[in-house]
Amino acid sequence: MVKRSFPLSKVYQLLEPGPVVLATTARKGRTNIMTMSWHTMMEFEPPTVGCVISNRNYSFDILKATKECVINIPTVELARKVVGCGNTSGNTIDKWKAFHLTPAAASCVTPPLINECFANLECKVVDSRMVSKYNFFILEVLKAWIAPSARARRTLHHLGKGTFMVAGKTIRLPSKAK
Amino acid sequence: MVKRSFPLSKVYQLLEPGPVVLATTARKGRTNIMTMSWHTMMEFEPPTVGCVISNRNYSFDILKATKECVINIPTVELARKVVGCGNTSGNTIDKWKAFHLTPAAASCVTPPLINECFANLECKVVDSRMVSKYNFFILEVLKAWIAPSARARRTLHHLGKGTFMVAGKTIRLPSKAK
Repeated sequence: MVKRSFPLSKVYQLLEPGPVVLATTARKGRTNIMTMSWHTMMEFEPPTVGCVISNRNYSFDILKATKECVINIPTVELARKVVGCGNTSGNTIDKWKAFHLTPAAASCVTPPLINECFANLECKVVDSRMVSKYNFFILEVLKAWIAPSARARRTLHHLGKGTFMVAGKTIRLPSKAK
Repeated sequence: MVKRSFPLSKVYQLLEPGPVVLATTARKGRTNIMTMSWHTMMEFEPPTVGCVISNRNYSFDILKATKECVINIPTVELARKVVGCGNTSGNTIDKWKAFHLTPAAASCVTPPLINECFANLECKVVDSRMVSKYNFFILEVLKAWIAPSARARRTLHHLGKGTFMVAGKTIRLPSKAK
């Protein structure tokens, strides 16, 4: 999927609606993919994201040690792969092969972008103080990518137990909000 | 709107999809409403929620001092009221009157529920350590309410600048996820 650079000042527009994302990590030449829904924007610029990653996940130790990840945003076409990545562990399988996903080189971090996702956010951990108590990492987005064709973003929003709301229509109201 | 008690173990199903919410606070007999999109689940049980509230908001000082709020979840029918609450300050107007919203008594906290919202989560602040640096409050949900009729929850998801994605169709995939 062809991507163009996306302004860091607009990253909140991608994460604020609450999509399920796929986080990629890398260590010692091995890369992994994790499905994640517990994240929030924390600051507009530099774009800062808080996310919870269970310490039972294979990706937890990798992120804690390497302090780098990519947040990849999938649309509904990837729903089965998203569930697949969430139901398996990188400790026992290669999720790229198992779910036919394609890595692409990032520009600022070691973990790869997922080519099939319409947006990719290269991140570094900037604050780990809440990791031991809450498994909560604070990330700064260093570089963002988007597919120019991704106008109608049919993102996935987890309602629990494998049920997802798919992004519906868009409405616009006069607002002073950023 | 008639409400029934909602199991605390299922609260994540309401917030994980990332809806815009209305947070109510109370101090010295005055109550206020704030529109909020920057929140995430942090733990299933007790349901724990992290949220960012700008220190420029009238509600920030109230929540910091009183340590209580209610998270109310609106649907698309309330879109204009949601934008109205986001574009005004409780410092200068009474949002209940301005936007024709109705308070209802909570059972565990002082701030009121918004009757027109299909779900209401009574919360107390349990960790303020990240407030000074990130305006980030960690809340525990003490009691949850839901309208029994709220099957198709057409929640709002902010895409920036008054543009909202409205919750679309629901899909279900076999999954081991909670």
